[in-house]
Amino acid sequence: MKVAIIMGSTSDLAKVEPAVDVLKKYGVEVQVRCLSAHRAHAGLSQFIEETNTDGTEVIITAAGMAAALPGVVASQTVLPVIGVPLSGSVLDGMDALMSIVQMPPGIPVATVAINGSKNAAYLALQIMAVKHEKIKDKLLEERKGMEEAAMKANAEVIAKFQ
Amino acid sequence: MKVAIIMGSTSDLAKVEPAVDVLKKYGVEVQVRCLSAHRAHAGLSQFIEETNTDGTEVIITAAGMAAALPGVVASQTVLPVIGVPLSGSVLDGMDALMSIVQMPPGIPVATVAINGSKNAAYLALQIMAVKHEKIKDKLLEERKGMEEAAMKANAEVIAKFQ
Amino acid sequence: MKVAIIMGSTSDLAKVEPAVDVLKKYGVEVQVRCLSAHRAHAGLSQFIEETNTDGTEVIITAAGMAAALPGVVASQTVLPVIGVPLSGSVLDGMDALMSIVQMPPGIPVATVAINGSKNAAYLALQIMAVKHEKIKDKLLEERKGMEEAAMKANAEVIAKFQ
Amino acid sequence: MKVAIIMGSTSDLAKVEPAVDVLKKYGVEVQVRCLSAHRAHAGLSQFIEETNTDGTEVIITAAGMAAALPGVVASQTVLPVIGVPLSGSVLDGMDALMSIVQMPPGIPVATVAINGSKNAAYLALQIMAVKHEKIKDKLLEERKGMEEAAMKANAEVIAKFQ
Amino acid sequence: MKVAIIMGSTSDLAKVEPAVDVLKKYGVEVQVRCLSAHRAHAGLSQFIEETNTDGTEVIITAAGMAAALPGVVASQTVLPVIGVPLSGSVLDGMDALMSIVQMPPGIPVATVAINGSKNAAYLALQIMAVKHEKIKDKLLEERKGMEEAAMKANAEVIAKFQ
Amino acid sequence: MKVAIIMGSTSDLAKVEPAVDVLKKYGVEVQVRCLSAHRAHAGLSQFIEETNTDGTEVIITAAGMAAALPGVVASQTVLPVIGVPLSGSVLDGMDALMSIVQMPPGIPVATVAINGSKNAAYLALQIMAVKHEKIKDKLLEERKGMEEAAMKANAEVIAKFQ
Amino acid sequence: MKVAIIMGSTSDLAKVEPAVDVLKKYGVEVQVRCLSAHRAHAGLSQFIEETNTDGTEVIITAAGMAAALPGVVASQTVLPVIGVPLSGSVLDGMDALMSIVQMPPGIPVATVAINGSKNAAYLALQIMAVKHEKIKDKLLEERKGMEEAAMKANAEVIAKFQ
Amino acid sequence: MKVAIIMGSTSDLAKVEPAVDVLKKYGVEVQVRCLSAHRAHAGLSQFIEETNTDGTEVIITAAGMAAALPGVVASQTVLPVIGVPLSGSVLDGMDALMSIVQMPPGIPVATVAINGSKNAAYLALQIMAVKHEKIKDKLLEERKGMEEAAMKANAEVIAKFQ
Repeated sequence: MKVAIIMGSTSDLAKVEPAVDVLKKYGVEVQVRCLSAHRAHAGLSQFIEETNTDGTEVIITAAGMAAALPGVVASQTVLPVIGVPLSGSVLDGMDALMSIVQMPPGIPVATVAINGSKNAAYLALQIMAVKHEKIKDKLLEERKGMEEAAMKANAEVIAKFQ
Repeated sequence: MKVAIIMGSTSDLAKVEPAVDVLKKYGVEVQVRCLSAHRAHAGLSQFIEETNTDGTEVIITAAGMAAALPGVVASQTVLPVIGVPLSGSVLDGMDALMSIVQMPPGIPVATVAINGSKNAAYLALQIMAVKHEKIKDKLLEERKGMEEAAMKANAEVIAKFQ
Repeated sequence: MKVAIIMGSTSDLAKVEPAVDVLKKYGVEVQVRCLSAHRAHAGLSQFIEETNTDGTEVIITAAGMAAALPGVVASQTVLPVIGVPLSGSVLDGMDALMSIVQMPPGIPVATVAINGSKNAAYLALQIMAVKHEKIKDKLLEERKGMEEAAMKANAEVIAKFQ
Repeated sequence: MKVAIIMGSTSDLAKVEPAVDVLKKYGVEVQVRCLSAHRAHAGLSQFIEETNTDGTEVIITAAGMAAALPGVVASQTVLPVIGVPLSGSVLDGMDALMSIVQMPPGIPVATVAINGSKNAAYLALQIMAVKHEKIKDKLLEERKGMEEAAMKANAEVIAKFQ
Repeated sequence: MKVAIIMGSTSDLAKVEPAVDVLKKYGVEVQVRCLSAHRAHAGLSQFIEETNTDGTEVIITAAGMAAALPGVVASQTVLPVIGVPLSGSVLDGMDALMSIVQMPPGIPVATVAINGSKNAAYLALQIMAVKHEKIKDKLLEERKGMEEAAMKANAEVIAKFQ
Repeated sequence: MKVAIIMGSTSDLAKVEPAVDVLKKYGVEVQVRCLSAHRAHAGLSQFIEETNTDGTEVIITAAGMAAALPGVVASQTVLPVIGVPLSGSVLDGMDALMSIVQMPPGIPVATVAINGSKNAAYLALQIMAVKHEKIKDKLLEERKGMEEAAMKANAEVIAKFQ
Repeated sequence: MKVAIIMGSTSDLAKVEPAVDVLKKYGVEVQVRCLSAHRAHAGLSQFIEETNTDGTEVIITAAGMAAALPGVVASQTVLPVIGVPLSGSVLDGMDALMSIVQMPPGIPVATVAINGSKNAAYLALQIMAVKHEKIKDKLLEERKGMEEAAMKANAEVIAKFQ
Repeated sequence: MKVAIIMGSTSDLAKVEPAVDVLKKYGVEVQVRCLSAHRAHAGLSQFIEETNTDGTEVIITAAGMAAALPGVVASQTVLPVIGVPLSGSVLDGMDALMSIVQMPPGIPVATVAINGSKNAAYLALQIMAVKHEKIKDKLLEERKGMEEAAMKANAEVIAKFQ
């Protein structure tokens, strides 16, 4: 079980790390790369090439502004590619969202919320769970925990306002 | 290999059919449903329940306006859920895009382009290809065909302007 | 006289409290809950079920991002449901506004301003006032006070610039 | 049971009529007026005055562009005021939505979708149902019919794709 | 020479004061009021009434969010009404701009930039200059000064980069 | 009494004509020009020069896309300059609105609605009415007619729904 | 003198042809290609490679939706790259504009108006004119013609309204 | 080798300086001016006149809000004009972007990202490189360095997550 995470710039590191944490908690091997579609063209192509044969099952990409990275990755692989639009420019990630979600027919990018790298990790896990029963079980368990935490928070809110 | 497609309204039918066509071409069993998150609450929950045990591997959801459907489905399954924002309202699908892509942590929806049901199908195939070598091979083949078609179109454009 | 307030996350607490304060000032019984449409699906349905029979007259819902909560609540009750879009994401509540106001025919959500929980409370009071003469009288009185305060502020501004 | 509907211009008539139809189906008395906040200032104030004493329980307002009508009505009554943003300008109703939903504290307008006059009627009915058991019963019945119609549509879709 | 300035809320004071300063520098009598279209309805109408007969030549209005004030004032006078959309809500004044500029035929509001109260003052002066030669002369003089200041700033920039 | 109207392109003619009609109805002399800020730079400056001395009292400008015309005119005169953002590009006049309304301090443009040339004419009349009692009287009379027409339309709507 | 024009899809042909016409009128050799960044990755890289050595002086790129093409081209050459955002999706080219103009530091794309391929050609000519005096002369001449045409159109407008 | 940089206001200085730094690093002579299209009309025209004959090869313009500067400069020269939309107003540069990029046919402005003055400099260099082999060589060298830096950053990221 192996996921690749590619960010476009080292300034995106802090926004990408939550994805790494979630995946590691699930025992997934994570390969993190910083390979801009615009500034590391050859290095990016070579890494995508590698992921096509090294057992990588999902690629998470995160980029801001004119975020070409997710689409460029998607065009060079048939692995599922997840795109995380990042804020950072004055347009607050709306530019990156447009650049990532509006892909042409045939080359999809699975887009999540602006700065939603945590959800990119969960989506990657859900994708891998199609194959790996073990991950599915763990996800179902965490969902149950999520619901219990939600109900506990609800209980606290009820208490607070009584 | 089984994919469920849920639309929110029968008026979305024409926008959803391209996804069905793509999936059938790949020999995937497709279950199409029209179950609004707002008007068929119980029926929707029951169908999601079924998909959790009947071998469905991916769920494609398509909805317009305040498109709650994809998120509501995603909250009741750990299968990968793909969301297709549909135009149709005066806001041209921008409302649906906001309603689908901006999911909270823990419950991702893999969002594609506005009216991008074709890409929803391809994304579903790429997800299933993680498990099914056969689909992966066919996707790689189609990509090659896509590239050949692109180069042929290029040749025609070159000819036209010579 | 009873109003239910449902928020989607405990992080919304501070934005919701003004509604509680307004309602309590009017002697309305307030039930506050934290029940995400995405993370507390069953708990939410159960609570809506309760409100349908326990004398609740209005439900206020507050949520950010892909704010499915108001619509999901509205789909399970014929009590008037008020929706408060919350800011918090990088899109400043525009995502939540789109997700709440653009409801399909038959399932309305009474939407107020972004972060407008105070107005959600006043709207709830105005709705209850259709039935409860006492609330109507108090609202008319407060409106008179509001106008007096406005005229007093005007007097101060006149003085300041003379 | 009485509802007032105020539109800003006769050109809005076709967009407002669905609300009249829904309300009449429920046996509600409907008073329809065309009173622009900007061009029929005195006439509007006089009509609002009347609704405050003639048994009107809800006021529906519909306006496009710089849609001041809903807010101006809301400022002169404590009856619940519903606002329907209308498209029609080149901005497709986004201008009207901003002008209606972003009301200041103390003077709420219950905003529905752009061109959502049908939902304005349903919201009015749900508000009156707080007082009138008869309307509540009918709404619950229609909801049941809505769900049955939805499930029937679903059955047709299933049939179509089998 | 007399200008009225009406703001919707005392929280707008700091954003309105630059207009007062500009007008006073030109020897214009300024009447500043705080009269919300929504909360001081009667007081506002009465003041507009007064401006129609007390020699006021231009009315400047400033409001945020669902900024009905400028349009409501414009509908009760044929004096030129200038509208200043104010930021302040999470939508940064875009809501106020839509609410002010998109007026229906027959009732214009002369809209300036978001938070552009200084320009509202200059526009008022240019309007009064149509009648008052003295103001025109002073405006032409200030324009000359403006240009000289601009050229001096240019000289400093040239120096800085040499 | 003289107004200049400058459009940026002959393709704007139909959108500008309503302004001419309104002004002529008031007996105002109208000078119409087609002088793009970008393509008729010298001709535009010369015409503005002329308006500064030939008795012109207001300048109406209408332009689409990157609508520099209103601001460029405003920078060369202290006559009140009204700007009409025109639709026509794929951005429906939102580009022109931004280009016209967001003027820097000292050089105001009185902006009206997108395609609002009729209101540009009324604003010009209201500005001239500050000086010309005759126009003021006529405007007041037309307003009265406007209100009567509004009340008549209201009567028809009442009749229609009875 | 040689310009390359690359479009992303044959459906963009009609929107790209005006650029070809303008360039040919100037005697510039034009190489037109249809090479999607997403579907013709290798073919695109090879063509960019060729332009780097075959005397091409400017590359015009035109693409819609998540328009990665201009940025991807720009990342593989130091020739000036012009980007034309194309409408076509439901978002009217706003998605393409965001995807093209918001490039990261070091890899600029010279962006023109949505569907502005004619201006892309003129920009290419102005760039080549830095080197080629002949083009500069012709551009200056055409500008003069443009101004004369503008003044002639103005004369016609004057005549029409007299 | 000479580039002119024109900003609209001294408050833009810090946002423009990165362009100066990049150009100087390449040994390009830079003339920096502060000449608002609205406040230094004559001075601006005179400076553009000068650039047409003093060997200037590219003009970079930077402006915020209703940014007329780039278009006005472009209309008075056939030198390539680059436009940098600046943030600064509450609309975060979206107003300036619309005002700069949406130019009419015949008068292009090469628009870069909001606050993208660094890229304006690189674009200017790439334009000059069409003529000056020396700049082209240096650009190619810097691109190589850029790629090496990118790969080094990638190596650090790999190390960090191992």
